[in-house]
Amino acid sequence: MSRLLFGGDYNPEQWPEEVWLEDVRLMREAGVNTATLGVFSWSSLEPEEGRFEFGWLDRAIELLHEHGIGVILATPTASPPPWFSVAHPEGLPVTADGVRLLHGSRDTYNPASPAYRAAAVRIATALAERYGTHPALVAWHLHNEYGTVGFGPEVDREFRGWLERRYGSLAELNRAWHTAFWSQGYSAWEQAFAPQATQYLANPTQLIDFKRFAAELLLDCYREQIEAVRRLSPGAPVTTNFMLPTWLHYDPWAFGEASDLVAVDHYVDARGVEGAAHAALGADLARSFGGGARWLLMEQAANLTMRGGRLLAKEPGAALRTSLQHVARGADGVLFFQWRTAPAGAEAFHSTMVPHAGPDSRVFREVCELGRTLGALDAVASPLAAVPAPGAGGEPVVRARVAIAWSADAWWAADSPGLPAHDEGFYAAVRRTHRALWMAGHVTDFTRLDAGLGRYDLVLVPSHLAASDAEVAALDVYVRAGGHVVVWHFSGTFDSELHIELGGYAGRFAEMLGVRVEELSPLDDGETVALDDGATGTQWSEFVELRGATAEARYTDGLVAGRPAVTGKRHGEGLARYVSTRLDDAAFDALLHRALADAGVAPDAAGAGGGLEIVRRAGADGASFTFAINHTSATRTARLSGTDAFTGALVDGEVELAAGSYAVVCEE
Amino acid sequence: MSRLLFGGDYNPEQWPEEVWLEDVRLMREAGVNTATLGVFSWSSLEPEEGRFEFGWLDRAIELLHEHGIGVILATPTASPPPWFSVAHPEGLPVTADGVRLLHGSRDTYNPASPAYRAAAVRIATALAERYGTHPALVAWHLHNEYGTVGFGPEVDREFRGWLERRYGSLAELNRAWHTAFWSQGYSAWEQAFAPQATQYLANPTQLIDFKRFAAELLLDCYREQIEAVRRLSPGAPVTTNFMLPTWLHYDPWAFGEASDLVAVDHYVDARGVEGAAHAALGADLARSFGGGARWLLMEQAANLTMRGGRLLAKEPGAALRTSLQHVARGADGVLFFQWRTAPAGAEAFHSTMVPHAGPDSRVFREVCELGRTLGALDAVASPLAAVPAPGAGGEPVVRARVAIAWSADAWWAADSPGLPAHDEGFYAAVRRTHRALWMAGHVTDFTRLDAGLGRYDLVLVPSHLAASDAEVAALDVYVRAGGHVVVWHFSGTFDSELHIELGGYAGRFAEMLGVRVEELSPLDDGETVALDDGATGTQWSEFVELRGATAEARYTDGLVAGRPAVTGKRHGEGLARYVSTRLDDAAFDALLHRALADAGVAPDAAGAGGGLEIVRRAGADGASFTFAINHTSATRTARLSGTDAFTGALVDGEVELAAGSYAVVCEE
Amino acid sequence: MSRLLFGGDYNPEQWPEEVWLEDVRLMREAGVNTATLGVFSWSSLEPEEGRFEFGWLDRAIELLHEHGIGVILATPTASPPPWFSVAHPEGLPVTADGVRLLHGSRDTYNPASPAYRAAAVRIATALAERYGTHPALVAWHLHNEYGTVGFGPEVDREFRGWLERRYGSLAELNRAWHTAFWSQGYSAWEQAFAPQATQYLANPTQLIDFKRFAAELLLDCYREQIEAVRRLSPGAPVTTNFMLPTWLHYDPWAFGEASDLVAVDHYVDARGVEGAAHAALGADLARSFGGGARWLLMEQAANLTMRGGRLLAKEPGAALRTSLQHVARGADGVLFFQWRTAPAGAEAFHSTMVPHAGPDSRVFREVCELGRTLGALDAVASPLAAVPAPGAGGEPVVRARVAIAWSADAWWAADSPGLPAHDEGFYAAVRRTHRALWMAGHVTDFTRLDAGLGRYDLVLVPSHLAASDAEVAALDVYVRAGGHVVVWHFSGTFDSELHIELGGYAGRFAEMLGVRVEELSPLDDGETVALDDGATGTQWSEFVELRGATAEARYTDGLVAGRPAVTGKRHGEGLARYVSTRLDDAAFDALLHRALADAGVAPDAAGAGGGLEIVRRAGADGASFTFAINHTSATRTARLSGTDAFTGALVDGEVELAAGSYAVVCEE
Repeated sequence: MSRLLFGGDYNPEQWPEEVWLEDVRLMREAGVNTATLGVFSWSSLEPEEGRFEFGWLDRAIELLHEHGIGVILATPTASPPPWFSVAHPEGLPVTADGVRLLHGSRDTYNPASPAYRAAAVRIATALAERYGTHPALVAWHLHNEYGTVGFGPEVDREFRGWLERRYGSLAELNRAWHTAFWSQGYSAWEQAFAPQATQYLANPTQLIDFKRFAAELLLDCYREQIEAVRRLSPGAPVTTNFMLPTWLHYDPWAFGEASDLVAVDHYVDARGVEGAAHAALGADLARSFGGGARWLLMEQAANLTMRGGRLLAKEPGAALRTSLQHVARGADGVLFFQWRTAPAGAEAFHSTMVPHAGPDSRVFREVCELGRTLGALDAVASPLAAVPAPGAGGEPVVRARVAIAWSADAWWAADSPGLPAHDEGFYAAVRRTHRALWMAGHVTDFTRLDAGLGRYDLVLVPSHLAASDAEVAALDVYVRAGGHVVVWHFSGTFDSELHIELGGYAGRFAEMLGVRVEELSPLDDGETVALDDGATGTQWSEFVELRGATAEARYTDGLVAGRPAVTGKRHGEGLARYVSTRLDDAAFDALLHRALADAGVAPDAAGAGGGLEIVRRAGADGASFTFAINHTSATRTARLSGTDAFTGALVDGEVELAAGSYAVVCEE
Repeated sequence: MSRLLFGGDYNPEQWPEEVWLEDVRLMREAGVNTATLGVFSWSSLEPEEGRFEFGWLDRAIELLHEHGIGVILATPTASPPPWFSVAHPEGLPVTADGVRLLHGSRDTYNPASPAYRAAAVRIATALAERYGTHPALVAWHLHNEYGTVGFGPEVDREFRGWLERRYGSLAELNRAWHTAFWSQGYSAWEQAFAPQATQYLANPTQLIDFKRFAAELLLDCYREQIEAVRRLSPGAPVTTNFMLPTWLHYDPWAFGEASDLVAVDHYVDARGVEGAAHAALGADLARSFGGGARWLLMEQAANLTMRGGRLLAKEPGAALRTSLQHVARGADGVLFFQWRTAPAGAEAFHSTMVPHAGPDSRVFREVCELGRTLGALDAVASPLAAVPAPGAGGEPVVRARVAIAWSADAWWAADSPGLPAHDEGFYAAVRRTHRALWMAGHVTDFTRLDAGLGRYDLVLVPSHLAASDAEVAALDVYVRAGGHVVVWHFSGTFDSELHIELGGYAGRFAEMLGVRVEELSPLDDGETVALDDGATGTQWSEFVELRGATAEARYTDGLVAGRPAVTGKRHGEGLARYVSTRLDDAAFDALLHRALADAGVAPDAAGAGGGLEIVRRAGADGASFTFAINHTSATRTARLSGTDAFTGALVDGEVELAAGSYAVVCEE
Repeated sequence: MSRLLFGGDYNPEQWPEEVWLEDVRLMREAGVNTATLGVFSWSSLEPEEGRFEFGWLDRAIELLHEHGIGVILATPTASPPPWFSVAHPEGLPVTADGVRLLHGSRDTYNPASPAYRAAAVRIATALAERYGTHPALVAWHLHNEYGTVGFGPEVDREFRGWLERRYGSLAELNRAWHTAFWSQGYSAWEQAFAPQATQYLANPTQLIDFKRFAAELLLDCYREQIEAVRRLSPGAPVTTNFMLPTWLHYDPWAFGEASDLVAVDHYVDARGVEGAAHAALGADLARSFGGGARWLLMEQAANLTMRGGRLLAKEPGAALRTSLQHVARGADGVLFFQWRTAPAGAEAFHSTMVPHAGPDSRVFREVCELGRTLGALDAVASPLAAVPAPGAGGEPVVRARVAIAWSADAWWAADSPGLPAHDEGFYAAVRRTHRALWMAGHVTDFTRLDAGLGRYDLVLVPSHLAASDAEVAALDVYVRAGGHVVVWHFSGTFDSELHIELGGYAGRFAEMLGVRVEELSPLDDGETVALDDGATGTQWSEFVELRGATAEARYTDGLVAGRPAVTGKRHGEGLARYVSTRLDDAAFDALLHRALADAGVAPDAAGAGGGLEIVRRAGADGASFTFAINHTSATRTARLSGTDAFTGALVDGEVELAAGSYAVVCEE
């Protein structure tokens, strides 16, 4: 059986059985070895409460199995059937305005509702009982894109319990939420609610606590299903599919640890080189959320770039190159949403492997070419059940020497009400940083700050507004042990309760950085500030004072004229830089270049960068593979050495890659 | 009695009776022969439930009658009085979010509520009993601008019943709505609801079915009133006023057929030539919705151009020219909202015939001039009761050789969630097409595709995403019988259930067009694509394959380079063109020019076009009238022949029309 | 004890008591003499219903008192504690859509709820009982920024009662609301509701009546607290803080009269000269709302310019200059929100006197400089209890010869639905006018039109759409007695019931102006109209006819070509000008210049204007002080004469003021 999974979501229940026969024929033609069943099939599997209809699924699995196609089986719990809404209205989600949402779309469930939780475990259990030991079973795909949490009495009750557990006493709650401000002091637990619609700015700590609670509530739902399934299906790895990268309704590290391997959905939002940069971002997040372990790309689109509400077609070869990027960056499977396009419904134009036009189409021909290509790379992957679990340690599948800090708290803190300015925010700052590194030819990890920094030579900390005690301490230890870091403006302002460290902004990191930020000075729309090294800043500036650091650049105009703009403080071999404005692109690249050089980090491969992507990953049996992908529209040259994975020829030296083409070599 | 109706909405209940005397004096001065009473008078007619006060209306009608002014009597059911809200809260409309809307504006009714329906029929019956045979009665104006349908339990109950009648079984409902997608399978009728607020994209077929249901619900309300009124007022024609052209809460063909004649409200949204093009669009829609029969302009504004929330004054003479356009295009009456401007209320600035400034005003002087002009054209019109009903056949009042396809389904389908791009949409594509034909001097009909195409030489099909089996078949028959058609990109993609025809987009029309559309390629914002004939496309492109058609132009760049952009397929004398992008204006005009020329369609009159509008319509007794209106700011020349309607002089040859002026000649 | 108050909101309950000691030390260092306590302290003072905790407040007041710092004591009623929401859900505000808002922010109260009203009076009474005669007590600050009124049954009940009292009969209500339009006739009082969500445009008179009711409801709340507090604290002046200038939820004149002195909150929204113009606007409003009496600046920000959601830092010295502007324009106290920045909560970044960085900061150093400066100006102010109450007559603290008309009705009328165009509106027109006068060196009052015009030489009436009978009569008397006025387009269109004066727009003022406005002609976006004096108009034009006035300028193009654009009518010495378009900046300045010159109004001081602000105000004991503040970035010269308030030196002649500097001289 193939190890490198290739396939996609498959919904035979949407088609007459005669189509199934064409499906398996085409799957084999395309080299598909895996199909994901059941993702939104609840109403087909349990058309009335407690009455199950497994016949169609039995037949579909058998048919696939007969044709050598493995099955990833999903629990359908992301979309309860209409009978559920009518029988359990309290199981429906409620908006912050108190509107109860009805079925008719997807995700109309309330994770705080016991009725929903019971129904979800029941269908998961029924599936595991029936299929848990089926030889076609490759893995479990629990739920879909966890993310929906609403409001209302059920949620209030659970949130109240969570607060009691977290804070123990009302005094602690009042302290943490700083309820003395605006007369919010709580004198009984029954006064605590989820942050539904209120008159004006909500309490930021209440908001972030609610996000944490919601993430844990979803994790509880996930764990209940894991427990139900693992018991009855001991051999099959269990995962769920994260929606990347702009959904953050969960703590990805916690979900990763709960899983046997990480799986993600990723849809690129640009064509060409920018699209490739975006794909690399998604892949590096996925690998990182599993602690460096191999992972699965559970969903991507064969011919679809989503951009501002438009579904743009992909350029020729893009799906193949993107898929190779994912494999290069650690994926042991490349799957699509979905196999065959639905003829109707809200996502009928979501692109698929077999489009509306049928197999006689550019799209399906590219799918077949991708299948052939992946077929030649099977040695890259391990048997799924043999992939080390996230957090189990072991060598990462791809070795990165530079990492970007990522945490749900940092993201959520940047979305707080009442911040002094809407600067680019956590995600945009992270994406910009990752893209700049990718363009410079570097492979990047994402990392939590509170663990495991030692494996990196350089840690970048963009827009990390809230930092826990553990994060502060770990980063400090890292720097004092010789690590290099760059910290972005406004980072380290808050602790985990969103209390501001007094004495100066960035105060959590201030000693490490050797600066004191006396005052913030966000810039107006269109306002810029000049630096003495020729750089220009926008969005933000600060009244920085040196307290042990030296200035690498100073402001030359504006309210902050004369103040340090970029600083560095040495800690023996360690170096902690601070940048107090949003640098223009060239200055930003130059800063990163300096930081990389100081940390001794060079690209893994000569010639990489500028859209020529070169990545080395571990294969299955100690082998390593180097992927070179030319995303540009010009011929580029890569220096490679090893066995060509497609031809078996020995390669050693400069290889010319035409625009859009690629090479993979294996070094044992 | 005059046959060409001239007047407007009249609300004597808003004024002391001494003003009424001035009103009738001024009406006579202006040549007004018709007043529409009672449009929003419910609370004045029935101030408490079941207690009627007809005295004021008796006196108003008598006063008008004494002065020779006919009455169009409205039922006031578009705005129930405050007592209704208090007595029957379930008769109020509810938003998709569950908010029950209260009185205080207009249209606070729920057409699914039995209480509302009963109250509406009661007041309509009471009016018909009292005035049904009054000699002043010209026609019935039932309700006002049907359009309001909300949500809530009353609507859910009716919608459920409609679904049961439409689909018969849950299996059929599940098939049609493709509920296997996203776990929406229904296992009991009680699970079906109107598409109220849900979590994410709603089911497109459920949405369009709800729009159809709502249109039929409104039609039921209309029919109930028709029945109540016709029984007691056998001689008077019955109509209701459509709001044109951007309201589409009903199927205009069905409403037209239910009426004795079509009446519309139309407010132009531009000045100058663009305003004239917009007026012509409204007039052609109105005539078409009645199958070519004479119609009434029930509302327009004397001095008001609505544009992005601004009420702009009209340029001198604009009201007169617009009114002549409507008469030229088949109106047998030109009425205004309203006679006298209210001194207060939400629409106090809606322009009227007697403005706030009083009769000593530019506006009223123009109204008087219009009255004199229309007075000289009385022979154009027929007695209202003699106008053939919509769908009764007979010669159309204006003969058009080119038609644009129009259907509620096509509009609604273009508003579906999840479409691949927000291109210009149905209404904008239709308006652009109509305008281009008007600028080229052509009179255009709108047509349903499933009937009566034989009368046209050319049928244009812009943005017709959903096509029924009957539409597909009728268009096919039309082309094979020698008809010419042009079909826009993405048209014919869906059937009536919004299921996509598989095998290629535009699939419903694919064989007729001789193309296969393998793949869509919507363009990004600002993206363009070049054609080999020098044209430029925006918004949209497609991977078109020829399957019997020939390419008239090909793409030369972008993802679709080399593919056909505009195609044509011959069917004997018939010709079916397809255009797969949004052409630039010049190329669009050139395409239409080619299509018209191939179909042998020339403008009715030499010199027409570019803002000189020349239209011939049937008069009352076999006569025909030619209207020439110069909307431009330059002198233009028209070739006319007949008797000048104003001077009685014989005209034969070139007539000079100064900027803004007009001529009407009668040919018997 | 100091007379010129200096300090800010102080929330010791948010800090451990050890911080309090630093607070009083720093307050003394900064020259702070006043602290405002208790603004949002309800949950700290009454943590459970009926259980009070005054200990912390006792200690805080004693500590301040010991250090010679006076206390302004607030009632905390703007933010009920969480226990209130749970015990009295009907006391929560409800949106127009029926959403009940929950605690978690501030202002979650319903002023129509008896439970809220009782709880508010209870806490106010308890505070007055305990602290009403405390020697540290300087004044009472009741509630905070009155402004929240929602919807729902409690509000409906009160509104209904208000309507019954106002109109006496349903017939009167129906007449005033013109309910004959759109079938809104009321036949029972129970049918009357607050204007919650409805289907389309709401009734404008109902809307403005609701705003008036809401303003009175808030005033009732205020009066209840005044009564409770005055009884127990006879010596201390009572006030509340208005939020200026874009909040208008109350009638400022009525609130002013109910108070012992006016207090306002004002946050500038620009830097530099524009910020100074904005500060002057706020100060002039505050003084005017008290009828010219001395007033308090209750809140400003030390280092914060709010602009489109951004919190921008102030330029050096800006807080000092702004504070001097307020004192120059009549403030006897300059206070800040707030003393020490909260470490958490929704407004943690709201700037304060002691910033997060602590006292070693630019901000605190500027606060200390401000304290020293104000300390030298103590003779400007009177003991607070000796300030004459608003409306008590007496000489105004600053003498203005030109006034701008201001009324809540005029503002509210300009927000009505269905107006013919969204022109700049009341507030923008007023702000533009005030700024132009300020730039020209004039001190401006705001005035009600129905009283006290005699003190002015020129009255400007921008965008005053609705005018009461009393306003119309008083302005007429003023002009006939020799006064000069300029009236803006569209003003005088409505009476107090928002009924349009018939016969021509501006009809309420038409006879006085000598014009008839036959027709409005709002301009399209980007459309302009030229005048024969070289000016350009935008947004608006009118068909003006002269009826006794003469044309000062005429339109030369557009629909209104040839019509008068600017007119004047003499009434003996009196002169009434009308301007029917929005003039370009230069023409607007020229018109004001002409009007000022004709009225004989020159700036108080030579050289004033263009950002050099020179204002003379009354001191405490018959002395007068002249403030000269240079807001520009260049050196400017002012002619001053008197005793330098800081050095005691005699000054007489030209004084050079460097960029950003200031001078104050005393003339006895």
